[in-house]
Amino acid sequence: MKIFCNKELLNHAVQTVQKAVATKPQLPILTGIYLLAENDKLELHATDYEVGIKCTIEAQVEQPGAVVLSGRYFQEMVRKMPGDTIEISSSAEDRTIKITASSAQFNLLSLPPEEFPVLKQLTSDNFIIVKDNVFKELIKKTVFACANDEARPIFTGGLVEFSGQNIKMVATNTHRLALKKDRSEQAANDVKMIIPAKILTELGRIMTSEIPVDVKIYWLKNQVAFEYENVYIISRLIEGQFPDYNKVIPPSFATNVKLNTKHLLAAVERVSLMARDSDYNVIKLSFKNNSVTITSNNPDIGKACEVVEAAIEGNEVDIAFNVKYVADILKNIDSEDLIFSLNTPLSPACVKPIDDDNYIYIVTPVRTS
Amino acid sequence: MKIFCNKELLNHAVQTVQKAVATKPQLPILTGIYLLAENDKLELHATDYEVGIKCTIEAQVEQPGAVVLSGRYFQEMVRKMPGDTIEISSSAEDRTIKITASSAQFNLLSLPPEEFPVLKQLTSDNFIIVKDNVFKELIKKTVFACANDEARPIFTGGLVEFSGQNIKMVATNTHRLALKKDRSEQAANDVKMIIPAKILTELGRIMTSEIPVDVKIYWLKNQVAFEYENVYIISRLIEGQFPDYNKVIPPSFATNVKLNTKHLLAAVERVSLMARDSDYNVIKLSFKNNSVTITSNNPDIGKACEVVEAAIEGNEVDIAFNVKYVADILKNIDSEDLIFSLNTPLSPACVKPIDDDNYIYIVTPVRTS
Repeated sequence: MKIFCNKELLNHAVQTVQKAVATKPQLPILTGIYLLAENDKLELHATDYEVGIKCTIEAQVEQPGAVVLSGRYFQEMVRKMPGDTIEISSSAEDRTIKITASSAQFNLLSLPPEEFPVLKQLTSDNFIIVKDNVFKELIKKTVFACANDEARPIFTGGLVEFSGQNIKMVATNTHRLALKKDRSEQAANDVKMIIPAKILTELGRIMTSEIPVDVKIYWLKNQVAFEYENVYIISRLIEGQFPDYNKVIPPSFATNVKLNTKHLLAAVERVSLMARDSDYNVIKLSFKNNSVTITSNNPDIGKACEVVEAAIEGNEVDIAFNVKYVADILKNIDSEDLIFSLNTPLSPACVKPIDDDNYIYIVTPVRTS
Repeated sequence: MKIFCNKELLNHAVQTVQKAVATKPQLPILTGIYLLAENDKLELHATDYEVGIKCTIEAQVEQPGAVVLSGRYFQEMVRKMPGDTIEISSSAEDRTIKITASSAQFNLLSLPPEEFPVLKQLTSDNFIIVKDNVFKELIKKTVFACANDEARPIFTGGLVEFSGQNIKMVATNTHRLALKKDRSEQAANDVKMIIPAKILTELGRIMTSEIPVDVKIYWLKNQVAFEYENVYIISRLIEGQFPDYNKVIPPSFATNVKLNTKHLLAAVERVSLMARDSDYNVIKLSFKNNSVTITSNNPDIGKACEVVEAAIEGNEVDIAFNVKYVADILKNIDSEDLIFSLNTPLSPACVKPIDDDNYIYIVTPVRTS
């Protein structure tokens, strides 16, 4: 193998596939990035068997070939290389790969390329096309609500539903649920799949295009693949039955409260200082007299109390929540005002942006003595 | 106690004294910040018995008094408070302190103020006046060279020497030494003292004035105090005899090499990728043919090699160093070019900015097989 390629292109490709390089792999080969040079293209592959990422860039291929380089070292090296052009060459005699740019030269030991589980393209007629900024937003608004607890795998993923041109993404840890809706570019067959939260988070990070681009999402059995620009990502799906989230959303509320998002978040964050180290991170909200009084109490440290203006329609309510579950949604609401809807102190509440039914958050209260 | 004060002033004062709040204290009281209100002033004190910091701000004192608040909580609370004015009040009945700003109210439990070791002012005729930017620069250019190893306490501090209007700061871990010279505003009695590196680093962080201000430095027995603006800092000194650093500086060099600082640093950092995980982090420098060839070799990963242009006067030399000791000084040289001076592969080398004799760095080479 002997190629020349643009440093910035290579750097971007390495940073993209790097997300799939295994840190504690079953097999040493998975710590590597596989490079395949042919037909004026350089393909980079990385996989940890949960997710695989391939990125293809243009290159001047003088001699085709394949090598596997340590992901960790190759990534840092390319990032720090001087100049605009990088040369990568291997010789048949020894197993080192020469990487040269301007005055700098590295000789990296190669891992055996024949051992690398090269990414296979998913062949499927089932696909949908979504703009990357739409898909990123679906992820951002929901994935934080997933469970971290591997004991219940279903809840460590986000449910993605395609139905005609409608897309829904839903995430829950059973104590809170986030649901965000949007539209695809084209209609597709109806499907539901549960994508691991870890993969969704990485997808959100990898999709960095400045101008919205089309993402083609394929699915087949227990796999899903994302294809856009020069990137191809394939992931396993989580198997199992996602609970019927429609049952979790109360059909009506006895109390609807309009609040300023920023004011409420600032107050919740201040009051949370006293809640944080206590057993359940509990804050109490008392909705009455056109205001909400937020309080917390930590016997070892002290108490906090703050009053925020509110427009209350319906019954007065005193209710308590895990402060993190309230702060998380407030950080994700972009509109100036929000609607906090409640029934009783023990039934789920709903938080959503004002005048927007495409984003809903349900949070279960905490029972206090 | 009952006072009103400006939020920004209080926040700055709390952040300043916070640096001396003990994290793992011998006594629980040292986790607190002591507040003393009298004569239209609020004094804040914190100490971990190694260093003590006092900061005084204006306040409207309606009822004088003293309280001690949890440093950790008080600091976060003040930072997050809304509005411009903060009210702090205590009542004789219960032991809670009420902190109010706009719509937010906290009640913090007080620690017993009579138990707090209030900072005593050092009374000494020995003092010198230095601009804070001068003192910060002395710290920045030397303190990184101190030892972290508590087994040899002398080397965990920086030596400060006042002699007439001359100031010198010297730090060493016996493998490398940094020496920086500057001038004070006034002459003082000659003195040498060893200030703990931890305290010097904190001083560098606390001194944040935009316009240079005078720092009055007092000393008495095993203590040193720094007074400027509304801040007073007192620290213990490290006792013992600092070695004669003049003996460490070679009187002459057989080889003097002029190099571009940025180019050399970039090359050293790249080559260090291969050196980092090996046993001694060794890079080799070969000075010949008007260039320096920097190499490293890690049998498990690979090799790196880079050539940097150099103007060499004198003998050719091959020498090896701990890469960190070379990178550290290159990051601290501000001039475009530097002089790397050498004798033999086993004798100490010197690195200094070109045309500046007030900053010198000595580094001992590594013996390689």
